Amino acid sequence: MDRKASEADPKGILAAVLTPMDEDLKPDHETFAAHCHRLLAAGCHGLSVFGTTGEANSLSVNERLAALEALIESGVPMETLLPGTGSCALTDTVRLSRAALEAGATGVLVLPPFYYKGVGDDGLFRFFAEVVERVGDERQRLYLYHIPQMTGVDLGLPLISRLIDAYPGVVVGTKDSSGDRERIMTLCREFPDFSVFAGTETLLLETLQGGGEGCISATVNVTSRLTRRVYDAHAAGKDDEAEALQERLTQLRASIEAYPVIPALKQLMARLTGDKQWRNIRPPLSSLDEKRTNDLLSNVPLAELL
Amino acid sequence: MDRKASEADPKGILAAVLTPMDEDLKPDHETFAAHCHRLLAAGCHGLSVFGTTGEANSLSVNERLAALEALIESGVPMETLLPGTGSCALTDTVRLSRAALEAGATGVLVLPPFYYKGVGDDGLFRFFAEVVERVGDERQRLYLYHIPQMTGVDLGLPLISRLIDAYPGVVVGTKDSSGDRERIMTLCREFPDFSVFAGTETLLLETLQGGGEGCISATVNVTSRLTRRVYDAHAAGKDDEAEALQERLTQLRASIEAYPVIPALKQLMARLTGDKQWRNIRPPLSSLDEKRTNDLLSNVPLAELL
Repeated sequence: MDRKASEADPKGILAAVLTPMDEDLKPDHETFAAHCHRLLAAGCHGLSVFGTTGEANSLSVNERLAALEALIESGVPMETLLPGTGSCALTDTVRLSRAALEAGATGVLVLPPFYYKGVGDDGLFRFFAEVVERVGDERQRLYLYHIPQMTGVDLGLPLISRLIDAYPGVVVGTKDSSGDRERIMTLCREFPDFSVFAGTETLLLETLQGGGEGCISATVNVTSRLTRRVYDAHAAGKDDEAEALQERLTQLRASIEAYPVIPALKQLMARLTGDKQWRNIRPPLSSLDEKRTNDLLSNVPLAELL
Repeated sequence: MDRKASEADPKGILAAVLTPMDEDLKPDHETFAAHCHRLLAAGCHGLSVFGTTGEANSLSVNERLAALEALIESGVPMETLLPGTGSCALTDTVRLSRAALEAGATGVLVLPPFYYKGVGDDGLFRFFAEVVERVGDERQRLYLYHIPQMTGVDLGLPLISRLIDAYPGVVVGTKDSSGDRERIMTLCREFPDFSVFAGTETLLLETLQGGGEGCISATVNVTSRLTRRVYDAHAAGKDDEAEALQERLTQLRASIEAYPVIPALKQLMARLTGDKQWRNIRPPLSSLDEKRTNDLLSNVPLAELL
């Protein structure tokens, strides 16, 4: 089964969408929906809400479900959504995944359970197998979310291979936030029918050249236009233009990455929209202090953003 | 304020209680309550339900609340309970803590949020501060749960000191599962009014001698009687007897610790009670296979357990 053949599956540029919060640190549904609409208008093919960047694991399940409901009501096209549904608890991931698929999301992005460490591939396999079987929805497209610097859990290639074999047409892709270029190239090469998204737009062009689908990235919250231009130049076979744009994009990303990324992005959104509420962030993350914020705002080329 | 002076605060031997599960991996409330009653009868001063051993982070918030409700209904004395209420999400920890305190629990054992890594002390401080203030219950006694091998988060002494200073009479103790003897001794020495529990009965006598309160331990699910004898011998000033009993206890613990502890304890419970359902465990944890189970059952002195 060639899953890449499906037009419905996500591809290209996806923002790992920030979650704006009010003064009480509750998700601000109106600003969230407006941000999603703006990202699509700026060139994103899709939206990966409720991931690491979205502080999803700092939200309760009910808060995630309510925010998803608000997006639906705002008219964000559901087929653009690849929501994160990962959690430590099997029952939470099943509940979130069912809700996302019933709403019409194109798939779900699932972390490995990340509380216990060193659990071994059998336990991780059993977790994903239970998710697939309990969700029991033929629309299910499950993307494995690899981000070992947060989870402390390695999704190794033997495990990925075992999951693809066990659930063809269901376990169909991955977001790889390891930052490991070699691993991403190996995934593209060894699993040609598996959709590989780099977790950073720095590796976008290489991922596309290697046969991957694109990127799902935090910084795309503010780099959508330029990131989309790299994608389009590559798709049009304009290799030199794609390389030149990728170089600019890599520099732009680096100027943001010099700071803690999620707080930096929230400061940039506050500056770009004039809405100071964008600075709010749930603990354990912290806002950038004034000095670092001023550094950030003077070092990032604001005119190139959004 | 000398929090140690309060009779209501937990002290002594607390089991980090296992959560038995049915074939569908749902918590089995009846077996859970029976196990809690048996642990108290076997000498436990208290019960730390919903911790690492209890697979609490593999359960949804609603599953934790329903299991707590079942314990209340079964007549487990609420003043013996120190439930874990830790999660990655501020709102979940607040909800769980409120429910535990309203039910009459003696305190709550709170993990640092463990999804994000390297967040810094300010973010961790703000998390605990928000928990204390949002729970807003004068009965609140918050115990910091330090288990860096799972959380990937360090609760350093400067952070602990800052929390004690900010919330005297609320942030009153810790369970330290680092296994770091020096750290536990330092905590006892530097924070004399702070209740220090070792996360293993191997360090019980040293912790008591250093001025700590006792231990909260996984293996106490099956070692309660002997662990209590160490505590009582120490309390009675029978130092030689306490040392000898501690030595036996350390050997007993070591015989279990040679295996993955939670699966091993569930196998031991299945053997000791004759109830095979005790083997059930949620992914990502896995049951011991037959060979390791046979090894375990032949290497652990079963007659000394429970």
